[in-house]
Amino acid sequence: MTLDTTRADPLARPVVAPGSRRGIGLGEMRLVGGFWGGLQETNARATLRHCHDWMERLGWLANFDRVARGATGGERPGWQFSDSEVYKLLEAVAWQLGHTPDPAAERLWGELVGRIASAQDDDGYLNTCFGHDGQAGRYSDLSAGHELYCTGHLLQVAVARVRTHGEDDELVRIARRAADHVCREFGVDGRQGICGHPEIELGLVELGRALDEPAYIEQARLFIERRGRGSLAPIALLSPAYFQDDVPVREADRWRGHAVRALYLAAGALDVATETGDGELFAAVERQWTRSVERRTYLTGGMGSRHQDEGFGDDWELPPDRAYCETCAGVASIMVSWRLLLATGDAKYADLIERTMFNVVATSPRADGRAFFYANPLHQREPGGDVRPDAVNPRAEGGIRAPWFDVSCCPTNVARTLASWQSCAAFVDEEGEAPVVTIAQYAAGEMRVATDGGPLVLEIETAYPAEGAVRIRVREASADPVSLRLRVPHWATGATLRGPGGAARECAPGWADVAAPLVAGDEIVLDLPVAPRLTWPDPRIDAARGTVAVERGPLVLCLESVDLPDGAAIDGIALDTGQAPRGSGDGAIVRVRASTPHAGSAGRPPFLERPDHPGGTAHEVEVPLIPYHRWAERGPSTMRVLLPMA
Amino acid sequence: MTLDTTRADPLARPVVAPGSRRGIGLGEMRLVGGFWGGLQETNARATLRHCHDWMERLGWLANFDRVARGATGGERPGWQFSDSEVYKLLEAVAWQLGHTPDPAAERLWGELVGRIASAQDDDGYLNTCFGHDGQAGRYSDLSAGHELYCTGHLLQVAVARVRTHGEDDELVRIARRAADHVCREFGVDGRQGICGHPEIELGLVELGRALDEPAYIEQARLFIERRGRGSLAPIALLSPAYFQDDVPVREADRWRGHAVRALYLAAGALDVATETGDGELFAAVERQWTRSVERRTYLTGGMGSRHQDEGFGDDWELPPDRAYCETCAGVASIMVSWRLLLATGDAKYADLIERTMFNVVATSPRADGRAFFYANPLHQREPGGDVRPDAVNPRAEGGIRAPWFDVSCCPTNVARTLASWQSCAAFVDEEGEAPVVTIAQYAAGEMRVATDGGPLVLEIETAYPAEGAVRIRVREASADPVSLRLRVPHWATGATLRGPGGAARECAPGWADVAAPLVAGDEIVLDLPVAPRLTWPDPRIDAARGTVAVERGPLVLCLESVDLPDGAAIDGIALDTGQAPRGSGDGAIVRVRASTPHAGSAGRPPFLERPDHPGGTAHEVEVPLIPYHRWAERGPSTMRVLLPMA
Repeated sequence: MTLDTTRADPLARPVVAPGSRRGIGLGEMRLVGGFWGGLQETNARATLRHCHDWMERLGWLANFDRVARGATGGERPGWQFSDSEVYKLLEAVAWQLGHTPDPAAERLWGELVGRIASAQDDDGYLNTCFGHDGQAGRYSDLSAGHELYCTGHLLQVAVARVRTHGEDDELVRIARRAADHVCREFGVDGRQGICGHPEIELGLVELGRALDEPAYIEQARLFIERRGRGSLAPIALLSPAYFQDDVPVREADRWRGHAVRALYLAAGALDVATETGDGELFAAVERQWTRSVERRTYLTGGMGSRHQDEGFGDDWELPPDRAYCETCAGVASIMVSWRLLLATGDAKYADLIERTMFNVVATSPRADGRAFFYANPLHQREPGGDVRPDAVNPRAEGGIRAPWFDVSCCPTNVARTLASWQSCAAFVDEEGEAPVVTIAQYAAGEMRVATDGGPLVLEIETAYPAEGAVRIRVREASADPVSLRLRVPHWATGATLRGPGGAARECAPGWADVAAPLVAGDEIVLDLPVAPRLTWPDPRIDAARGTVAVERGPLVLCLESVDLPDGAAIDGIALDTGQAPRGSGDGAIVRVRASTPHAGSAGRPPFLERPDHPGGTAHEVEVPLIPYHRWAERGPSTMRVLLPMA
Repeated sequence: MTLDTTRADPLARPVVAPGSRRGIGLGEMRLVGGFWGGLQETNARATLRHCHDWMERLGWLANFDRVARGATGGERPGWQFSDSEVYKLLEAVAWQLGHTPDPAAERLWGELVGRIASAQDDDGYLNTCFGHDGQAGRYSDLSAGHELYCTGHLLQVAVARVRTHGEDDELVRIARRAADHVCREFGVDGRQGICGHPEIELGLVELGRALDEPAYIEQARLFIERRGRGSLAPIALLSPAYFQDDVPVREADRWRGHAVRALYLAAGALDVATETGDGELFAAVERQWTRSVERRTYLTGGMGSRHQDEGFGDDWELPPDRAYCETCAGVASIMVSWRLLLATGDAKYADLIERTMFNVVATSPRADGRAFFYANPLHQREPGGDVRPDAVNPRAEGGIRAPWFDVSCCPTNVARTLASWQSCAAFVDEEGEAPVVTIAQYAAGEMRVATDGGPLVLEIETAYPAEGAVRIRVREASADPVSLRLRVPHWATGATLRGPGGAARECAPGWADVAAPLVAGDEIVLDLPVAPRLTWPDPRIDAARGTVAVERGPLVLCLESVDLPDGAAIDGIALDTGQAPRGSGDGAIVRVRASTPHAGSAGRPPFLERPDHPGGTAHEVEVPLIPYHRWAERGPSTMRVLLPMA
């Protein structure tokens, strides 16, 4: 099988929603080095193959071969949702090929598509865990079976493929048959069920958009409307809220239960709402976003406070140490915010995307792209050490990134996000007389935005987020009078913009307009203040009371034990807030009081008769803080983001 | 089947360990009203039947009938460990009958023993989940099967029965056959396995003591020594520490993993250590107790910080809201501390028993004895409401006690603890020339301690813990010059003791000696200061920083939302520590600052640019605090033990 990547559409992008704003296509921006260019390159070079090899080794790929051979009788390796990892990897490959030709990735694509194709049943059903000899029947366990979830991810691969390559493609045909099967089985007159793990909804809407098949969008609408009515059989000790089957989507006022489920569902609901013009449904998700971001989200943008059900906690329940903050929930949160940004144009959604990109998505992969965090706590009390570099690991809570997991959803989710990263960098609004290009995320590279008047070519030079200057040069101007807007993040008080020709002017957080029309040769410099700053938790966050965080631009910083002087321990450190932190590289230097360990509580629980604990001496010392996303790269360590105040 | 409860041995007690100290027998103290007398009476009157009826309704009892009929082919109701709930109920019945004749309890005993007897296999194996037609093979899943765990609880019933009734008993014969079977299967030359859930160890040692069978004790020793060597197959995402199979017992320095497992294991290890004179093993458990109590235990005595694995957290990881503090872990902790108290005589163990009895064990049952807390958090953020009064519930985290649980270990554990409560009230040390009677826990009632010189009869009159006075009258003195010691709890600074005839003198925390010898007519009054007092968390407990608790005697107090004035919410309350709390009933009155809700954080995670949150007004108001053990008795509410400081 050979691929013609020259067919890639430069406008290809993950989300194509109705409305005047369109995200830029993958071919409209080329990342050149810098923070995100580096991560995307490592992803392409190392992570894609890494994921493939692990799934081959564990037999998750061979599951497709077994179905093809009719040899499904024996034990099947992997969880019931392992097919979805193969699809997420393929989606990453599709996006990557959509902007960068790569023979190795093309071979990977061809191999995987061939194996998948051979496992599809004649009627379009495609799943390696159910419905064949020796397996449970199709859709016999909607609560936990993940069949529609897997199909949803398959449809997302097809969406990527249609947009980057075209409809005439084997994987697209596979997905079309699978989607048709779902519509037949679960349509108005079919099974009235839903999947325990949302995902099929957004897959169906996007594929409906990509192939112009309203039936798929209607099927997604049915799934959204059926949810929240308690139809899913309980799983062990989990309540219906675990899979958002407790309250209909349009009635809910907050995200709850399993975070990834809640967020994929929200993304799908937004897709349905924008396609069907359902303002009530759209407003419901906006309301859920607001309440959940304001009360159930970590400083990093991480969502999900609880390990037990990988779920949201109650309002203000944001423990730093037991923060689950699953990497996949970060990915899903970005998917939701991106849809809201396109639909509303409100900069707050771009702010949250940036926070989550830098402090959750970028935190997960190790520098070499071959190990990952699954959970992203903000406080590590015990040094890691349980991770086995050559084995499948549990959820990597131990402060060391792991190469692969028993449930390994995060590596492939990171892969597809990084492979399509530039699609969230900017959007074009074509509603007014002239197009407005809005840069929402900053990365070094070249932007080549298509307009009716020809391309607008911008060269973006920046060391962001290590430095705050973003220099934009207009290489080619469109014949149309295109305007440009730049995002000033909410934290960037005192940001300045030097427009083409003009003097620097201060600009408030939100969107900063650059005087139009742009002319080739124009240079614009946005200067964002990235001096380290203190950030205090809302007093209602009990687990963070009496602490303060240090941020630097979009980066959350942390103190890692390997940076402490001899004898000092993370649990004896208190920040001297009287001295402002000062910048150092992409981190900061702060003054802390370091205490020696106190005595124990004499055979009693650790509660004291006096507020001042006896024993222990303290001394003041300066210590460096590093970006949170790079902790745990220097051996086992302890770490904290929120520092007690001296 | 008729029972002769007049055969009950007054010296019957749960733990009979070597050494000079013996706990008093159930027949040596009669509770008369008061805090513990009331709970024991409700337990006997309501809880025992309640547990029986639920297990009948759910088919857990019928599982025994099915094995007897050879009808095990179909679906089996209940978890694989449901037999153990039947045994724990029976143990409660045995202890109850050991001090209080009760025809209804006798009928319950007879019915259950008959059904159990008919399910025992010819070779002594007894389990309704494994080893029969259509079931998995015996011991085919040591990690999760709980077979030896269930057997351990069966042996504990027999221990209670031998001691309260004698060896000539059907249940004792059943248990003996079961224990012999275990020794044959798992002996030196047998299977080299252990059970995923410790329990068999302490059952074997105690039955070995009760029946004078050293082989049982040796088998327990083998199980203890085999543990910690990674022999158990992993369960899903859980690490070997979950079932303490990561480090040998004698090498471990802290409790970790599943709390109930860790604590039953510790109790069994102490039994083995005291029986075999293994000082190293004993010292290991003492070391684990000290570190775990000082760093991993809640103010209530509750153990286990994590919901995910029902396990201990890291040191200082003690979140009030997500405190798991399983009721069963409280019961198990008391079992461990009681063994350490008997072995060492150190009052700190009695202090922890008291803390745990009042604030974990007594918190679980509803006033009517027909609903229970499984988890015992110290902070409830959302009002309960998910509990279904007529259905099986999940773990009752929602702030409402539930009648029964999917995993229903706690109700029967509370039942057996309350049925034998007086056995932890005192111990007798017979090492010196004259016996020393030590009262470790205070409850209204009559103590009739057997000595060689005849009984020492004490009448104890107290409204403890509502009031601090404990009045002890010597009704009959022994012919021996028995001395008396009373526990002064660690918090009781300024306690006074008025001895027989003498003036009141102040006595320090620890053991207070009463001048001997006692003479009939003597009156002793211990006055413990139970004015409310402030207690501060160790500064290393991050989740409690900036808060303070109010305690009153042995009671932890809490603020419940139903006691707040209109418009005030639990998350807007801060304690004015400038005004001392004053006593009121068994609770307290405190002054707090009540704030109206603040504004949100404008579409961002709840972290602020300034330490003082804008918006919200505050006013000062007095509010009552109630004993933690009685919260959630007045409808759905929110609650907190640790109050932020104004």
